Amino acid sequence: MPDNMPDKVNKKQFAPLSKSARDQIRRIVGSDNCSDSSEDLVLYAYDAMNQRFLPEMVAHPDDTRQIAAIVKLANKEKFPVIPRGGGTGFTGGSLAVEGGVVVTTSRMNRIIEVDPENMVAWVEPGVINGDLQRAANDQDLFFPPDPSSMDFSTLGGNVAENAGGPRAVKYGVTRDYIMALEVVMPDGRIVKTGSEAIKSVTGYDITRLLVGSEGTLGFITKILIKLLPKPEAVVTLLTAFPDVSTASRAVARIMASRVTPSTLEFMDRSAIECVKEAIGEELTKGASALLLVEVDGDELGVVRQAEKLVDVCQKAGALYVKKAETAEEREGLWKVRRSLSPAIMKIRPLKINEDVSVPRMKIPELIIGVEEISRQHDIIMVNFGHAGDGNVHVNILIDPEDKEERKRADAAVKDLFQLTVDLGGSLSGEHGIGIAKAPYLGMEIDDNLIHVMRAIKRALDPNDIMNPAKTFDYGGQKAENASG
Amino acid sequence: MPDNMPDKVNKKQFAPLSKSARDQIRRIVGSDNCSDSSEDLVLYAYDAMNQRFLPEMVAHPDDTRQIAAIVKLANKEKFPVIPRGGGTGFTGGSLAVEGGVVVTTSRMNRIIEVDPENMVAWVEPGVINGDLQRAANDQDLFFPPDPSSMDFSTLGGNVAENAGGPRAVKYGVTRDYIMALEVVMPDGRIVKTGSEAIKSVTGYDITRLLVGSEGTLGFITKILIKLLPKPEAVVTLLTAFPDVSTASRAVARIMASRVTPSTLEFMDRSAIECVKEAIGEELTKGASALLLVEVDGDELGVVRQAEKLVDVCQKAGALYVKKAETAEEREGLWKVRRSLSPAIMKIRPLKINEDVSVPRMKIPELIIGVEEISRQHDIIMVNFGHAGDGNVHVNILIDPEDKEERKRADAAVKDLFQLTVDLGGSLSGEHGIGIAKAPYLGMEIDDNLIHVMRAIKRALDPNDIMNPAKTFDYGGQKAENASG
Repeated sequence: MPDNMPDKVNKKQFAPLSKSARDQIRRIVGSDNCSDSSEDLVLYAYDAMNQRFLPEMVAHPDDTRQIAAIVKLANKEKFPVIPRGGGTGFTGGSLAVEGGVVVTTSRMNRIIEVDPENMVAWVEPGVINGDLQRAANDQDLFFPPDPSSMDFSTLGGNVAENAGGPRAVKYGVTRDYIMALEVVMPDGRIVKTGSEAIKSVTGYDITRLLVGSEGTLGFITKILIKLLPKPEAVVTLLTAFPDVSTASRAVARIMASRVTPSTLEFMDRSAIECVKEAIGEELTKGASALLLVEVDGDELGVVRQAEKLVDVCQKAGALYVKKAETAEEREGLWKVRRSLSPAIMKIRPLKINEDVSVPRMKIPELIIGVEEISRQHDIIMVNFGHAGDGNVHVNILIDPEDKEERKRADAAVKDLFQLTVDLGGSLSGEHGIGIAKAPYLGMEIDDNLIHVMRAIKRALDPNDIMNPAKTFDYGGQKAENASG
Repeated sequence: MPDNMPDKVNKKQFAPLSKSARDQIRRIVGSDNCSDSSEDLVLYAYDAMNQRFLPEMVAHPDDTRQIAAIVKLANKEKFPVIPRGGGTGFTGGSLAVEGGVVVTTSRMNRIIEVDPENMVAWVEPGVINGDLQRAANDQDLFFPPDPSSMDFSTLGGNVAENAGGPRAVKYGVTRDYIMALEVVMPDGRIVKTGSEAIKSVTGYDITRLLVGSEGTLGFITKILIKLLPKPEAVVTLLTAFPDVSTASRAVARIMASRVTPSTLEFMDRSAIECVKEAIGEELTKGASALLLVEVDGDELGVVRQAEKLVDVCQKAGALYVKKAETAEEREGLWKVRRSLSPAIMKIRPLKINEDVSVPRMKIPELIIGVEEISRQHDIIMVNFGHAGDGNVHVNILIDPEDKEERKRADAAVKDLFQLTVDLGGSLSGEHGIGIAKAPYLGMEIDDNLIHVMRAIKRALDPNDIMNPAKTFDYGGQKAENASG
């Protein structure tokens, strides 16, 4: 991060954090577990969105009671509380855009219980997604949500943003695995939502209201997660197509084939260009679109499913279909997918990752439209993502030093969102709104629905202390890019 | 229904419906499409809960605009609006307990579109569940939620109550298939929630807040439903066990076997007793528990899955496992399951159906506890239901003329709920709270959570006109039973 980067403090509604508030926070969490020194604060000033907003204090509570005490204090002293997990979000959800106290879950990272009989786990919010994956795996169980950040992002953050991942096409998103929550509400009350029973329709679904609410409606302090039996076997295929339309037709046919792949990832020509050395010329020659397809299930079943999908892809016009026969080959294919992000960064130093989502059959129109936007604004745009559920990651690549390019990129983003909405799609499939997309929210959802959301926020958080200015309240100036 | 049954009008907060309001409703929907004659009103005074509350008027609007106009009028004139679909609910969700206008969806019953490529359907709320099932089936698609009422209940009602059904064990409940809604909010605004894209995290999840909210937060006027590819094949098994514990162990082993059954229905000894003639002595001899198990998938896969489950059941101590080899045999096994409800009604004229839900592994404790409650209160209790997801239908059988038996039944219900909550369970797995369970809500969820729910209700419906006194506001005297 460059030294000359200005710190953003964009306070509109809150006074500076008082000495009394600072002292009380020290008493609540212990002085070893909080700080307001600028060396410490800067560590909590950014996320993967590449903007920097300095909080006024950072606190690391150890239990729900401490969080409730901070939230109650925040209502009394009127300061923002910004929950923070791994800080891996793309949309600024954990940034202190109005100053205030960043409250991390770093010390609340216990897997409380994995219960193999009921196939559930209780976890604290600071548990890393990958750690739960491994703990489940040890019991022959399986936690499907697999955001690319899974080795760094926390389950609290995953819940707050309703994270997805490649496996969502078959298994759904984080929301589909959250049975119950313990939450500190914005007024400091501790509530337990949901049920340990899989089926429960007792009152309003507060659990799912909180999932994806980006920390604006409460601080998640405990999570009951539904697990699945681990699939016996996985087969991975890489298949290439001469153009996007043919690949999209293959996607449609795969989805209609009654074999639901556990992963159905897509790369367009510009993405292939970035990784062609990693894949090898043999597999990329003449290809303008690649699909990475996985099926999982029992040993015999996956073999038959894979055969069927090979057939479907070939009939849909694939140039070739490569099946990973060994664990190494499988790993090789995933290497291609995972090498994409770093490879893309070589083109330009800043990647703006917009995870737009459209009805599955609209993917060709989206990709063709993105190519047009890219030409029109003279901006490099690389597309890959989750074709099976219509969630495409459009990566806009710029040099942040080039002010003109930045302007053209902003115009391209707006055109991309308009195209997405025109196709019946959504601004975000899995990254959330945060502050990055908040100014565009009205392009997708109408004023009446925003009115409903704001009414709920006001009812539950009249002092607007829980993660203010996120989701639909960030109408202000966008902060300058901060990445170097 | 006996002629001498008193009509319940339990108005606490609303004045009688004014002549001006009646006239305006006539103008909104047309005088052919509404009525306030008592012969008509009595048709809308009950649901499957067996209580009767006479509305003041019934209206059958034809479109969203008319519903919005009625809701706006209701805010001005202060009268309750009670949405009504098929009237098949078990918990009184569609009853006019505070008087007001029952607004039916009977004329809004169009399947607007089934889109086989994107695998979605747009429907109006008055579409019968079974009609969508058939329309989906015609396109080789599949709508999993299958409440027993599927031939009569509407999708609007299914959404409002978050209906389940036997297939929920593999496929989830109604909530899991609702992508977007058009809703008239309690202030008369029309909002569109959700997205046509499968993945969307744009703002709060208002769609899922509305699912299961029992018509208290808005009137659902259009529904976007996610469909699945139709499974190629289904295999059905009936298996008998000497006692409930053995059957429960088999359920646990089935769920841990990595074969997720599409149905896993349970019947206890008293339920078997009711249908033993239909099944035949051969299959019920010595059996104190039956499981009806289905697997679905591709042709070859289901055969292998079924073999595995036969093996699991036998090893778990099954007396026998009968596999339906033909469509007729399959139909025969389902006949047993479906004959349960009518058979039970022969024991006593009134069946109070409580669909409690517990963590899967707690089923044996629940069943044993229910047997104890049954003995203690000298009340006949018959148990069957969805073992795979812990949702058991406890049927309390009484003669409503017998006041003493009624009292003992009420005490038994309370003990049942306490037992359920003590086991970490939920008062309702799929029927909702309505008025039937509203007085017991505090047994499961604490005051802080009820406070959150009420705050949302107040924020969105300050005049309390949308289906008042449902979910958590029905603290009054329970109406007398009305069934004959």
